[in-house]
Amino acid sequence: MVGIKRALISVSDKTGVVDFARQLAQLGVELLSTGGTASLLAKENIAVTEVADHTGFPEMLDGRVKTLHPKIHGGILARRDNAKHMNQLAAQAIGTIDLVCVNLYPFAATVAKQDCTLEDAIENIDIGGPAMVRSAAKNWRDVAIVTDSNDYAAIIDEIRKQSDLSEQTRFNLARKAFAHTAQYDGMIANYLTRIDDKNLSGIPDLQTFSQQYNQSWLKIQDLRYGENPHQQAAFYRDLQPAEGSLAKYQQLQGKELSYNNIADADAAWETVKSFTQPACVIVKHANPCGVAIASDTLTAYQLALATDTTSAFGGIIAFNREVDAATVEAVTGQFLEVLLAPAFTDEAKVIIAAKKNVRVLEIPLSAGANQFELKRVGGGLLVQTPDRHYIDAGDLKVVTARVPSEQEIKDLLFVWNVAKYVKSNAIVFGKNGQTYGIGAGQMSRVDSTRIAARKAQDAGFKLNGACAASDAFFPFRDGVDVIAAQGIKAIIQPGGSVRDEEVIAAANEHGIAMVVTGVRHFRH
Amino acid sequence: MVGIKRALISVSDKTGVVDFARQLAQLGVELLSTGGTASLLAKENIAVTEVADHTGFPEMLDGRVKTLHPKIHGGILARRDNAKHMNQLAAQAIGTIDLVCVNLYPFAATVAKQDCTLEDAIENIDIGGPAMVRSAAKNWRDVAIVTDSNDYAAIIDEIRKQSDLSEQTRFNLARKAFAHTAQYDGMIANYLTRIDDKNLSGIPDLQTFSQQYNQSWLKIQDLRYGENPHQQAAFYRDLQPAEGSLAKYQQLQGKELSYNNIADADAAWETVKSFTQPACVIVKHANPCGVAIASDTLTAYQLALATDTTSAFGGIIAFNREVDAATVEAVTGQFLEVLLAPAFTDEAKVIIAAKKNVRVLEIPLSAGANQFELKRVGGGLLVQTPDRHYIDAGDLKVVTARVPSEQEIKDLLFVWNVAKYVKSNAIVFGKNGQTYGIGAGQMSRVDSTRIAARKAQDAGFKLNGACAASDAFFPFRDGVDVIAAQGIKAIIQPGGSVRDEEVIAAANEHGIAMVVTGVRHFRH
Repeated sequence: MVGIKRALISVSDKTGVVDFARQLAQLGVELLSTGGTASLLAKENIAVTEVADHTGFPEMLDGRVKTLHPKIHGGILARRDNAKHMNQLAAQAIGTIDLVCVNLYPFAATVAKQDCTLEDAIENIDIGGPAMVRSAAKNWRDVAIVTDSNDYAAIIDEIRKQSDLSEQTRFNLARKAFAHTAQYDGMIANYLTRIDDKNLSGIPDLQTFSQQYNQSWLKIQDLRYGENPHQQAAFYRDLQPAEGSLAKYQQLQGKELSYNNIADADAAWETVKSFTQPACVIVKHANPCGVAIASDTLTAYQLALATDTTSAFGGIIAFNREVDAATVEAVTGQFLEVLLAPAFTDEAKVIIAAKKNVRVLEIPLSAGANQFELKRVGGGLLVQTPDRHYIDAGDLKVVTARVPSEQEIKDLLFVWNVAKYVKSNAIVFGKNGQTYGIGAGQMSRVDSTRIAARKAQDAGFKLNGACAASDAFFPFRDGVDVIAAQGIKAIIQPGGSVRDEEVIAAANEHGIAMVVTGVRHFRH
Repeated sequence: MVGIKRALISVSDKTGVVDFARQLAQLGVELLSTGGTASLLAKENIAVTEVADHTGFPEMLDGRVKTLHPKIHGGILARRDNAKHMNQLAAQAIGTIDLVCVNLYPFAATVAKQDCTLEDAIENIDIGGPAMVRSAAKNWRDVAIVTDSNDYAAIIDEIRKQSDLSEQTRFNLARKAFAHTAQYDGMIANYLTRIDDKNLSGIPDLQTFSQQYNQSWLKIQDLRYGENPHQQAAFYRDLQPAEGSLAKYQQLQGKELSYNNIADADAAWETVKSFTQPACVIVKHANPCGVAIASDTLTAYQLALATDTTSAFGGIIAFNREVDAATVEAVTGQFLEVLLAPAFTDEAKVIIAAKKNVRVLEIPLSAGANQFELKRVGGGLLVQTPDRHYIDAGDLKVVTARVPSEQEIKDLLFVWNVAKYVKSNAIVFGKNGQTYGIGAGQMSRVDSTRIAARKAQDAGFKLNGACAASDAFFPFRDGVDVIAAQGIKAIIQPGGSVRDEEVIAAANEHGIAMVVTGVRHFRH
């Protein structure tokens, strides 16, 4: 006879529940159940008692009240090692319930439906389920609480082997249960506090940002340390990570990822993902230090590396195409920390395996994005929708006498896309799908311009005929003058400065073709 | 007769509950209650029925089961406009409950106690309370759910005036209720998933990072837009913001804060807070572009501004002392976005009021810090403890032949503290409590060094005898060579490079005094 004598099963997600119930029944466990679950089990010829028959109290209010009964909660909450508790149960003829298997209807799925009314949403808020989950989890020393169908097999296995569940198993089930109810009520509060309370019937008006923002993340791993060795850190993933996001990585080899590896890999991956052509991005200290597009990954890498070989040392390198042997051969010629790509050829995997320390991540390529970007500040959080603004040639407005050539337009779109991922103020010089100089993270725009120019010179690029991008407008003409002095002949920028006239006049003076996008891409 | 005929009151936080109950009773509302709340009300001569008398079922299991009964939950959950529901209630002799006043014991306070055992924590998990809160909130069209004592007065007032509560009031109470249960189970899951499951008796071993990280934030305001105009954004605060953190601000005047204002203000505030002497910090694009300490705020501002007058244009300016009239007079001589300080003299407030657009924030000064810093990545979150490492002269290890003078040590500690708040790679030059040049956000350290040098030259500083800080070690001697070429005679850096010997030899060659801290301060 196993330690678990009576189980209550009532699930929304019915995956695997028939088999789980059947095995419990075979182990001699008496089964209680409700509604749809009870019908399903009965249909499968599994002996099951309806909760209403167990409590002697009719299910009422269209199912709103069925398990909210002392015969259920007393049976769950009584401490088996407490004689008073057990006597009280006996006096009320309440039998113990030793295992509770409940999962909750995904509220997020209900309210994600375009035509979901407030009434639908409210009707889908489970009351009895969370109460049982919480009761059973509280009394975890005596009751097993099962909220995840992925746990069914291991539970049956453990009961078969040990006639009961271990303390560790029960405890881990209990904390999973509270994690489940926390997420559940978090989703409900997120939804309800997004509703504009001027309209409380029919399909509600939802604001973008809820009054209370509740979020849950699952730990992927504790990290050796944080941004610095004296800080502790951990890496978490969203409950539902966006398709194509870094958190979907599979590490093929290499040392454990560090905090800075992850942050830099994310910057590299987001940048490389944004290109449609084969691209390579090299990141150091959260900034791209070399970016290129080409017909193949090897060429893209060689061009990206050439931008700034000094900074690329110890960098993070990302590709948006399957990486072949020749590319890996080239990449491993430099010291690198992390290599990311949607896929690697078998041959490439063999070659990289020789560099045991290199962390290699495979991430399925997809255009998905975070629902919200988050920035932590003292005692608070800035929440914003991601920067998902893309342009093509048709969005460009020429504001100078000189009109950019077709090749220049291609180059302008390229440097513009790179500038979007460089920390502000950002200035990017480039040509033929290759960055020539990247000026990042300066407090004045003209300084970023000077840095981009000096970096291009250091790398031996001739800037004559190259293009320049500025992530925000030029507040003064000085930036344009510095760019012109390099021989650059085309500039892309948002426009919109009070001194646009002065800035455009400067471009005209220098014979520069200038296009404006009307869109800024600050990234700090 | 008011619409609310029967109320159930069961609160952990008893603030104002006696008065609230008395007023409900005076309005003819029948009161049900449990345990401590019932005793308190009875003592105050307020007529109250014990829940056990109402249900006819004894409270059992040391209070674990008292309200988990169909007579309570049926009375809450029945839809008053649904004849079937009301007939079912009548058949079971269940009376409706129209207002539920329940709040939950702050679980976080229990588990924050050093000697809290797992048993204590578990015993403090409320089961019946959240079940009633959730039932009442679900049936919000018919039932008022009161979870916050701050709402008592308004509720009584509204009932007195309108004989009932409006739809809006009920709905807002309901979402507040789910926000409450979401936080509550979030805290429980955070605690339980921090426990090392090897020790499940007595005082548990808590890991720093929970397996599931649940967090809730309250919206302070929707922002006009995000980091860029095409992004939507909102500003949230922690439920319990740390003392002295930005989120504790009070805006005295000026336009609404923007996303970038808040991010930059946070950077400025965190930097200025870290100084014990009167200090001024000017921030642009999340980086300090001028920092100084002095005997008074006016001098500190003048010195900070002198570092980089170009970048300071449109900056965020923070002080760590009460700001007087003379300082405000000087500060408003430049274009600025936000002014922050722990306090302003009355005279200063009058002067700044003339500059209506300037956002002025007052924040109580305190050394508090976030429990965790957060960095969003694709599909995930990096969580780390804040960088709270401070040093004094005793922590410095001289590694060169030349030993820094007493004044140099002061200057080294100053530039080191500034470097901590500059984006990596960070190089800071300075002297006499004033920054001379700040090299920020570069992908190679030598580039940051060159930028700091050029900025100092542009500002007209003589670097002879000045000091330099590097936020991380020098990977090669090139950075030291560039610094030496400026005439700088003392350097502070973490040390720890594999080429430390080469770096120290370079310093000795140049007659530079070098001290190492053993601690890195990356900040990206």
